[in-house]
Amino acid sequence: MLRINESRLLNDIAELARIGATGDGGVSRPALTPADLEARAWFRRKIAEAGLDYAMDGAGNQSAILRSDPPSEKRILAGSHLDSVPNGGRYDGALGVLAALEALRTLKENDIAPALTLEAVNFTDEESAIMGLMGSKALVGQLTAADFERSRLEADELDRRFAAAGISRKSMLRAARDDVLAWVELHIEQGMRLESAVLDIGVVDAIVGIRSLHVTFRGEAAHAGTKPMHLRRDALWGAAQFVLRARQHVMANYSPGVCNVGLISARPGAFNIVPAEVYCALEFRHGSDDEMDRMQADLTRLMNECALEFDLSVSYEETPAVIPAGMNEQVMRAIERGADSLGLSHERMLSFAGHDTQNMASIAPAAMYFVPSVAGISHNPKEFTREADCVKGANLMLHTLLELTKEFG
Amino acid sequence: MLRINESRLLNDIAELARIGATGDGGVSRPALTPADLEARAWFRRKIAEAGLDYAMDGAGNQSAILRSDPPSEKRILAGSHLDSVPNGGRYDGALGVLAALEALRTLKENDIAPALTLEAVNFTDEESAIMGLMGSKALVGQLTAADFERSRLEADELDRRFAAAGISRKSMLRAARDDVLAWVELHIEQGMRLESAVLDIGVVDAIVGIRSLHVTFRGEAAHAGTKPMHLRRDALWGAAQFVLRARQHVMANYSPGVCNVGLISARPGAFNIVPAEVYCALEFRHGSDDEMDRMQADLTRLMNECALEFDLSVSYEETPAVIPAGMNEQVMRAIERGADSLGLSHERMLSFAGHDTQNMASIAPAAMYFVPSVAGISHNPKEFTREADCVKGANLMLHTLLELTKEFG
Repeated sequence: MLRINESRLLNDIAELARIGATGDGGVSRPALTPADLEARAWFRRKIAEAGLDYAMDGAGNQSAILRSDPPSEKRILAGSHLDSVPNGGRYDGALGVLAALEALRTLKENDIAPALTLEAVNFTDEESAIMGLMGSKALVGQLTAADFERSRLEADELDRRFAAAGISRKSMLRAARDDVLAWVELHIEQGMRLESAVLDIGVVDAIVGIRSLHVTFRGEAAHAGTKPMHLRRDALWGAAQFVLRARQHVMANYSPGVCNVGLISARPGAFNIVPAEVYCALEFRHGSDDEMDRMQADLTRLMNECALEFDLSVSYEETPAVIPAGMNEQVMRAIERGADSLGLSHERMLSFAGHDTQNMASIAPAAMYFVPSVAGISHNPKEFTREADCVKGANLMLHTLLELTKEFG
Repeated sequence: MLRINESRLLNDIAELARIGATGDGGVSRPALTPADLEARAWFRRKIAEAGLDYAMDGAGNQSAILRSDPPSEKRILAGSHLDSVPNGGRYDGALGVLAALEALRTLKENDIAPALTLEAVNFTDEESAIMGLMGSKALVGQLTAADFERSRLEADELDRRFAAAGISRKSMLRAARDDVLAWVELHIEQGMRLESAVLDIGVVDAIVGIRSLHVTFRGEAAHAGTKPMHLRRDALWGAAQFVLRARQHVMANYSPGVCNVGLISARPGAFNIVPAEVYCALEFRHGSDDEMDRMQADLTRLMNECALEFDLSVSYEETPAVIPAGMNEQVMRAIERGADSLGLSHERMLSFAGHDTQNMASIAPAAMYFVPSVAGISHNPKEFTREADCVKGANLMLHTLLELTKEFG
């Protein structure tokens, strides 16, 4: 049975980890910074060394291409991203790109011409240094000029970074493709479910939706000495009650859906002033959009109950939501057949983090799969996936691509 | 029966309120800023116009002096402060100084030579623009060079402000006095108890102590999507539980003692990161130091219980505490006799705010009394005390001083 070249894959992972290295095992390669540009140049060299074709689209997405014979108009794409969060780990994104490259190299050196042209893709700015999932959003034709205004970067810096990568706002808006037959992504789990269940592979059946609300409880500022406690309208009392009730309610009713209050602040903000206003950043995630509607209704009801309990008012503002993305059954089955043929144990599960696959799912049959993250640590230099699991993931990429060429060929 | 001059007192209040006026009824006169210096010059002119003697000590504390005949070595002092918080009200502090001045003026124009020399004092920096209760701390000999290091002002600015008032660090440290026989202060209540109970006067029997703790709950940062909720160690869960438990416990067991969490923040601090660390600024107040010890023991036990419940750790740092100050029985009775003679209703109560009287209590028999604050509003341009209550307070100052000259003469 065909296998990838283990030591070549592991060498690539180690070599790439030296670019933007943090010194403690991690990497810092925010999109289109010098470290990311260096990683992109390295990826291009690796593609050339492998004798694969290279292409970059208007969004800066880089591809290694292995053409079918005869060359097919439509293609199977696989990959992930080489950019990282600041002080991130070496596996998040990188493993998916390198595994796809390794799969193509393996086919190439074994003189296997696939039934459909294959591409191993590195997407630009998955990790939100600019806006997040940017390259895949451009590729699926959903990027608009307004998105640039919402970038985390100042306009000047945005254009400087684009120019350094040989792209522009204009080219980004013309990067839509219509030749994608299917998409598959390998990623580290960034959670502990595979490790706990002692499984090789997690086949993602949906990427959760994410809704983020800016919640503000309002009471009345007061002197923290002279105002008797029973007469206070302390906004923090309502917010604290809400944090606990939301936790309890989501765990009891929406598991494995989750919620989080990640930011909190009180105003005016002093030891001796009763808080008049407390702000909470509330986020919740679920695999089903209908369930998310119910979660939101429940959470806003809880907010109001908690406000009422302490004679407060409460309001919230929604930020743009991420809609849950269901994965394609054909692609999931291709992954599962590949896993079975390799003797890898697998189960279906939700992805609680966002991935480029959710964009790809809007234009083509798409799915993704996970390999275990030790202790679930990610976005951290301590992020770690065992060598054996990296190899299993890459072998599964090879066989999934072969399955997909049969399925869609 | 001798009475103060109502219209003169009310005119003084209105005139003084034009200095540092905020335009909406309030005043901004942080200590030794131009507005405060203008108020100090105004006070000095008023003293001269009344034919009273003027003195300023090394701490910038200003006095109107009405000498006894023959002049007594020891003196009875009364007063408060003319400085205000930024955007404060016109009554906080000012009423106490003006009522004491008016009492001395009334005696002077009625040719009543008191049995003991009387002083109407304006203390420097009661409101913490520099360090709070500074002038009275210097007068009682408790100010040290180290206090200047803890000032809210940069060293340069501190020295500039001192120089503008004709004082220096050196003169401040030499401002201790040993000629104070007794002290009395009139202040607005800044609370709602007098108004609720329909009382004229609150005779303060203790000024509460204040303890302030920097409390930090520590858990573990995690991805707010991929980390299942039952495995999270969310520091905000513990902090929220503590906010609610502390509230409940203090209300049930330490009333009228109070507690407050006035500041809260979460780190790393993002929608999508489970809080690793939550900081809370906890303050609690009580009239008895023994009870404060018990409160602190209870609150730290609650902290630990809340941390344990969510698999967190918690620690706290104490900041310098304010020790409760019991008021002197002789002075309280002098106030009460004065109130009875004027037909004013009164009750004893705690002061939940700090006042210069707590410093004066360390060197002499001291007490203070309150007049009602409408709706308890203070440190706010909406702060208001009815004219009739200002007049009652000033008449009581006049008769309390007469009682004290008998008591201590």
